[in-house]
Parts: sequence; structure tokens; C-alpha cells
Amino acid sequence: MPSHFRPVELKHASRLINHGPTILVTTAARGRRNAMAAAWSMPVEFSPPRVAVVIDKQTFTRELLRESGVFGICIPGAGAADLTYALGSASGRDGDKFAQHQIDTTPGPVTGVPLIASGCVAWLECRWLPEPRTEDLYDTCFAEVVYAAADARVFADGHWNFNAENRALHTIHHLGAGNFAVASEPLRARGA
Amino acid sequence: MPSHFRPVELKHASRLINHGPTILVTTAARGRRNAMAAAWSMPVEFSPPRVAVVIDKQTFTRELLRESGVFGICIPGAGAADLTYALGSASGRDGDKFAQHQIDTTPGPVTGVPLIASGCVAWLECRWLPEPRTEDLYDTCFAEVVYAAADARVFADGHWNFNAENRALHTIHHLGAGNFAVASEPLRARGA
Repeated sequence: MPSHFRPVELKHASRLINHGPTILVTTAARGRRNAMAAAWSMPVEFSPPRVAVVIDKQTFTRELLRESGVFGICIPGAGAADLTYALGSASGRDGDKFAQHQIDTTPGPVTGVPLIASGCVAWLECRWLPEPRTEDLYDTCFAEVVYAAADARVFADGHWNFNAENRALHTIHHLGAGNFAVASEPLRARGA
Repeated sequence: MPSHFRPVELKHASRLINHGPTILVTTAARGRRNAMAAAWSMPVEFSPPRVAVVIDKQTFTRELLRESGVFGICIPGAGAADLTYALGSASGRDGDKFAQHQIDTTPGPVTGVPLIASGCVAWLECRWLPEPRTEDLYDTCFAEVVYAAADARVFADGHWNFNAENRALHTIHHLGAGNFAVASEPLRARGA
């Protein structure tokens, strides 16, 4: 695990993607592995922590997921925007993207799924909850989070902490066509 | 429709929520209406444009949705963060939130669902696609977008345009407990 990473309590796991960051989905099965960028994900339940991610049925990621039953959600920081865009622009069927982009990984402590150390600020290890109908109709895959960790410089005690000092660790939110918005400016609602 | 709003082509509708903004879900049935804040939504398909939104089965919004079969997604700008938090902190069963917060609405041109003019920067009108199993298990409601519009000062030609001049119109992304991150800083990936 990268030196700044700390485990995140599962009751706080939904907070990691609550604000809609673009994510990297990692998978591995039978000696093959992949990482794809995904803008479409969300929590669906706090406890047990569950998520939904749209993974097109034609993707190599869906193929590996069907074999292994697990996937990783890796949340890139602003410093990894170029990598995120590159991972979203090619298929892992054409070659191992980890080797191609010299991506460091570490195995998830619960499932062994490869998690991306390079440029990522948080991880969720997920066990697939098969839902054939909505996977088929809407490419929407549900999963339960079984482990989470985050870079304590930007997420601690269940809260993101975006400030001027940790700018490269701020999450990125895909607007389309390689343009992202960085979630850089905190705003506290009145009454909160 | 507010004077700065323009229709958004349905092929660009997914772009409005692609980056994970917090939304307001509006509903109406038999003379009652409601607006709730929701952090958990995502597109699931470009064409036809389809979305998924987590709406707890206990909410007044789910009750109205079951009756009407339609809902609105209204995207608040940074200027409406206080309103968004307030709408997420009370139930519409306890009184009409529109009256309570003096919210201006306009009927959706396709379904008639009330859309929020006050402080919102984009709208999507949605027709519910009933999926009993995943609604029951994961509170995840699927829908097809039948109309979309956005404030042309911040979204035009299928693209968000966040800059220093339109700061109050930037989208907000809920971090939890009334704390938001504003998607204020553009970042273009290399190769994009």
C-alpha cells in the first residue's frame, strides 16, 4: 500500500465516490488484467456499502469481471488526469495497459484484485452482486464494497479535505472528451 | 423557462450529469409535489439517454413517482447550495417544500413535472423505467430522459464551461454533511 494510504472504515466507503469522481475500474482473471476509466458510478447503499458502476457489456473489463467476480475502484487524483484519459481511450484486449503505462499496482488485501498506486488517492475493493436483467439492459453492475483505503493527506476521518496544499490529490470529474473539472473548491451549506 | 435557458439536444443529455453533480429530484401527483436532494445519480446510456437515480423507497418522492411515472432532475448551481442542503434535510410529507422555500417552478414541456427555476442551471425530464427488483434491493430507479435544457451561460453546444465569470453557476458535489466541492477548475488531459 502506498505510504500515505490508510484503511477507510466501511461505513465511510460511500463518501469516497459520493461526489461523483471519475474512477478507474480494475480487474484480473486467469493471468490477464485490465484497467478502464469510468465516469458513471455511484453509491447505492451506506450499510452494507454498495455501489453501482456502468461497465459496457462489450468491454474486456466485463469479461474479466464475469470470470473473477471482483473488481477494484481506484480514484485518480488531478495528477493522474492524463493517465485516466489514456486508460479510457484504449481496450485492454489490445495489450496490457498496466505495462504500457508503467502503472504500479498492489493487490487488494481482501480479494487480491490489482489496485493502482500510481496517481490514485483512494481505493474500494468490490464483490460483484450479479443482476442479469439490469446488467443486460443498462450495463449497470452492482457490487458490495469489502475494503477501502485512501490517501490520508486528502481523505481522513471519513471526510475529503481539498485544499491548496494537496491540489494534485483532488478528484477529477469528467465533462466529456478529455475535459475534467477538478473538485477543488470547498463550499459549506448554511445550517450544516 | 428562465431567460438564459436553452434546450439541450438529447444526445448531449448525459453530459449534464456525467461529472457527478448533486441533483434535485422533483415529482408531482394528484395535487401534491416534492423536491429532494440526491447525491447518487449517473447516466447509464447515451442513446437513448437513460439515467439511474437512487431514491429511497421510504421517501415521499418514491411515492409520487409511483403515481406519476415521471420525475425531473434539476441541477443546482453553487448559488443554490443552501437550498440544496435544506431540501435534503426535510421530508415533503411534512409540508410543501416549494412554498416553504419560495421556490419558482416551471412545468416540464414534455411531462409537466415541476422544474426548479430558482438557482438551478440545468434540467432533465425523465420517464420512469420500472425495474422492481433493483428498485427494491438497491433503491435504484432507472429512467429515460425525454427533454433537457440548460443555462447557456454555463452549458452550451454539449459542453460545460466553468470559468471565473460564472462561478455561481458551477455545479456542486456533495462530500457529506452539508459540505460540497464546487467543480470550479477545468483540466484538459494531454491528448484530448
